[in-house]
Amino acid sequence: MTSERQVEQALNEVLVPGVGRSVVQLNMIRGIEVADNTVKVSLASTALSPDSQEWVRTKIKAVVEKLPEVNKVEIEFIQIKPTELNQVKHIIAVMSGKGGVGKSLIASLMAVALKRHGYEVGILDADITGSSIPRMFGISTRPGVSDTGILPVISRSGIEIISINLLLLQEDDAVIWRGPLISKAITQFWEEVIWGRLDYLVVDLPPGTADASLTVMQTLPISGVIIVSTPQDLTTMIVRKAVNMAKKMAQPVLGVVENMGYLYIPEIDKRVELFGKSKGLEMARAARAPLLGQLPIDPELARLCDEGNIERYNSDAFTALSQAFVQALPEAKAEP
Amino acid sequence: MTSERQVEQALNEVLVPGVGRSVVQLNMIRGIEVADNTVKVSLASTALSPDSQEWVRTKIKAVVEKLPEVNKVEIEFIQIKPTELNQVKHIIAVMSGKGGVGKSLIASLMAVALKRHGYEVGILDADITGSSIPRMFGISTRPGVSDTGILPVISRSGIEIISINLLLLQEDDAVIWRGPLISKAITQFWEEVIWGRLDYLVVDLPPGTADASLTVMQTLPISGVIIVSTPQDLTTMIVRKAVNMAKKMAQPVLGVVENMGYLYIPEIDKRVELFGKSKGLEMARAARAPLLGQLPIDPELARLCDEGNIERYNSDAFTALSQAFVQALPEAKAEP
Repeated sequence: MTSERQVEQALNEVLVPGVGRSVVQLNMIRGIEVADNTVKVSLASTALSPDSQEWVRTKIKAVVEKLPEVNKVEIEFIQIKPTELNQVKHIIAVMSGKGGVGKSLIASLMAVALKRHGYEVGILDADITGSSIPRMFGISTRPGVSDTGILPVISRSGIEIISINLLLLQEDDAVIWRGPLISKAITQFWEEVIWGRLDYLVVDLPPGTADASLTVMQTLPISGVIIVSTPQDLTTMIVRKAVNMAKKMAQPVLGVVENMGYLYIPEIDKRVELFGKSKGLEMARAARAPLLGQLPIDPELARLCDEGNIERYNSDAFTALSQAFVQALPEAKAEP
Repeated sequence: MTSERQVEQALNEVLVPGVGRSVVQLNMIRGIEVADNTVKVSLASTALSPDSQEWVRTKIKAVVEKLPEVNKVEIEFIQIKPTELNQVKHIIAVMSGKGGVGKSLIASLMAVALKRHGYEVGILDADITGSSIPRMFGISTRPGVSDTGILPVISRSGIEIISINLLLLQEDDAVIWRGPLISKAITQFWEEVIWGRLDYLVVDLPPGTADASLTVMQTLPISGVIIVSTPQDLTTMIVRKAVNMAKKMAQPVLGVVENMGYLYIPEIDKRVELFGKSKGLEMARAARAPLLGQLPIDPELARLCDEGNIERYNSDAFTALSQAFVQALPEAKAEP
């Protein structure tokens, strides 16, 4: 006799069209009943077009009918809100106040690191006017959008991504929006996207302490903030504004990452501190949080980002930083 | 007999307390009458505290009484709106869409260049949440603020500056404001500041194409936009958003500056293109505007900015860029 557990395992093979994660991973299965050789599966129709629903129905039937002693498969679609489907263990906001310090880069690398450590990870790109996440991951697929929800796009290594740039006709179209619209877009990216089951959702914030940061801190149940800085004095002054905002909003700072700390010049085997002496420890003290790591300026990394291949990046500094992320973030052990 | 012209010349010595520009330069003189050995001066009381008014009255009296055949000096203060005092020939917005490309740096260097060429220049720091202009110029004086207006602060070389950071208790205080407040602050920096007579007012925009950029383009009578970019593909994609915004808002792009083009390493006498090949010409074509110059990554410049000594910067690249600015901007010849 087939068990409900076996049915669920079989359903893990059924991918949601256009996403590349299964109906189980997206938490769309709402009930499984096995009785008298009949299997009843009810699942959310949220964000699925009629065509996608038909596709999912056919696939489910096919995999469940292969199970022992199953004679009949009944599939029922139910309408359910994305927020009721989503089971996100921790939301981590990556922030700096200052632009161009590598916030999106660190957010992306954190997602890559967590994915490599076996966690299920998503990225919510909250930088509505200066979105750069899709470019770094080399994705341009349009997310599935229906009346009932939005499906994320999946990266090559399996990271869920939602970004305004995936919804624009052209990636360099300007999003000329005032604050309320920006806040609404971010709220939709949280409330109307089928994130499903995730260990970590990384939120990439834009520079500044205005609408986007406020909305993320007030509307999303975030677990904490990662602060990104660079060694320049001018930068650290503005990054401290971000730290002060996090404090005011009672959001814990989980760690500080210093980017562009130095440039290694192989010809002379020397590290050059282009933007001055490291201020990482100083910033960490100001934020009352651990310094998670320092990344150099790495032309190879800039190239990989431009090519959309950030997921291929490897370096000693990144390996060390990855370990530090896993240790600093609140635990989200994947179920065995 | 003393002429009105002589009186005006004498008044040029009377500096407004806390600003370091004269009542003439700030366009506060509203009338000069000379008759029967009596000189009547009427001037705006705008933004002047009662103490400052007294100080100005005494100084004016002293300088005018020294003129030939003057027996009596009558001084009348009149209330007048800052917008009626201001005579700004050209407002130039510096924009990039992307953060951290050196927008504030280029805005500041443009102001320094114009000042060195003999123009009267001001900087309106429209980056409300990530203000960095005062730090680069090493100024922290609180602007004179009264019910009737705000007085700008003057840099060592005589550039008028207004920035939210000059009004904060501490420069790293976070400005946690939504869009409408940000727009209001920028509008106030334009409508309530006594800029006086200026050839150029440089507006430093924050990253993004949201409230601040919209307000500046819709509310301020700007003459055009300077676009700042860096060679990284990821950056140019976002900078094109800014170019597209300028087009949509029917604002002419006056020129493009490429920053962080390369790093010169003296030990091996080599230029290293840290962020990839130059995309300056490409960006200039997209913006249908001239490429005004390319600045390298210069640790010396980073140091001067951190120290508040940007006005001391000299380099061949900057000299060339300064010339290009003067040629590209709409003319604003100082009166002889």
